[in-house]
Amino acid sequence: MEKPVIFVTNDDGIKAPGIRKLIEFVKPLGSVMVVAPDKVQSGTGHAITVNVPLRMETIVKEEGYEEYSCNGTPVDCVKLGMKMILKGRPDLLVSGINHGSNASINIIYSGTMAAVFEGAMAGVPSIGFSLLNFMPDADFEGCSKYVRKLAAKVLEDGLPKGICLNVNIPDLPESEIRGIKVCKQSDGSWQEDFDERTDPGGRKYYWLRGMFVRAEDGEDTDEWALEHHYVSVVPVHFDFTAFDAINKLKPGLENV
Amino acid sequence: MEKPVIFVTNDDGIKAPGIRKLIEFVKPLGSVMVVAPDKVQSGTGHAITVNVPLRMETIVKEEGYEEYSCNGTPVDCVKLGMKMILKGRPDLLVSGINHGSNASINIIYSGTMAAVFEGAMAGVPSIGFSLLNFMPDADFEGCSKYVRKLAAKVLEDGLPKGICLNVNIPDLPESEIRGIKVCKQSDGSWQEDFDERTDPGGRKYYWLRGMFVRAEDGEDTDEWALEHHYVSVVPVHFDFTAFDAINKLKPGLENV
Repeated sequence: MEKPVIFVTNDDGIKAPGIRKLIEFVKPLGSVMVVAPDKVQSGTGHAITVNVPLRMETIVKEEGYEEYSCNGTPVDCVKLGMKMILKGRPDLLVSGINHGSNASINIIYSGTMAAVFEGAMAGVPSIGFSLLNFMPDADFEGCSKYVRKLAAKVLEDGLPKGICLNVNIPDLPESEIRGIKVCKQSDGSWQEDFDERTDPGGRKYYWLRGMFVRAEDGEDTDEWALEHHYVSVVPVHFDFTAFDAINKLKPGLENV
Repeated sequence: MEKPVIFVTNDDGIKAPGIRKLIEFVKPLGSVMVVAPDKVQSGTGHAITVNVPLRMETIVKEEGYEEYSCNGTPVDCVKLGMKMILKGRPDLLVSGINHGSNASINIIYSGTMAAVFEGAMAGVPSIGFSLLNFMPDADFEGCSKYVRKLAAKVLEDGLPKGICLNVNIPDLPESEIRGIKVCKQSDGSWQEDFDERTDPGGRKYYWLRGMFVRAEDGEDTDEWALEHHYVSVVPVHFDFTAFDAINKLKPGLENV
């Protein structure tokens, strides 16, 4: 029987410790193909590259393991890898392990999760993994068991049509993680601020900075799970329709 | 009584005909503040700029009308404009008019709609407008009535918490547009392809190209409305949780 094909990508770039660990964790499960950005693409959301040509570089090409870097975004990596290298769909797509949380509203800015949406849109069971530690030297050992188990489970069972998983992992040793909670996206927000500076020529410039503000929205959310030392698994989809609002808005808006 | 403040942005850049028309259409409704990218930012999704400093340039500053360009993404424009210029929330945010459709799954790649989500996340009633013609010389006159009416209506009534609008407009004269349908996001997809070329140095490079494939998923979708010459209005939200999947996945994933 042929080994399943596992596609690996991320948004922190191909050299990030998080993707190296993810590759190590999923290698026992099948043939692995890595296509990841050649530089940090954090905060790129679901961007695609249309104004510059895309390039790929072969890093490793051996039986059961291939690795390529690409000058595009995580979404470009998924599109290009599937179409031009794999020439088909993998059995599983995993993205990460992101250095930093993609829980709550962070998902909307996340290149890690954009790659996962892109996989799901192509019909591939897809999971994004993030560790709640954004430091380059974050310790991913505590993730090992959960990443391996969730990847194996989804590889075995698949996922419902149109659904992919946003998995966030507390920054704790494995022994202190209490298990997994399947939950909903918490309603947190970013309190933005800009650092205003003046360049040597006298022109102002700005650095975005912000503070994440948690919402106290119950025990069924990812933020609650993470705070209580659980791995959070949020099933997400790419139909953004707010169904409840359709009938509410119909009378007013259809007759303006 | 003070005039309401209307924030205008887009992803095709501050010089695009689409935003010029949008400004014209909403000017009678209040004080207008434009903060838009200084270059095309199409396909940037919900990207934010974290690795280069942001800059803004004042284009116009007069009573009731201000205009700034910014070197960042549409999301950067919204964050920076609200925080550093307006120092507060506008009464309405409008984004577009995009040159090209943001119906169906196109919403996920859209910088126009990313700005709208960002507005909604800040609690601002927000609308994205797109015309189904991606050409630089598209004719926006057919949009006039619907953009004006929808903007005025949302300014008056607001929108439910966490909800924003994805409005797409057929590329037709006003007289041929049959009205407005409040509907759901159609389940279309992109059939991707890459144009593989070789540079003078013998290295391969790729241009992304694709063909949108419509889904035949019923009369309650944006694609159906547009095909039948209606303006489509899809209420969307930024909670991506697939609620139906939570209980389905709980037993399997919480006990891996």
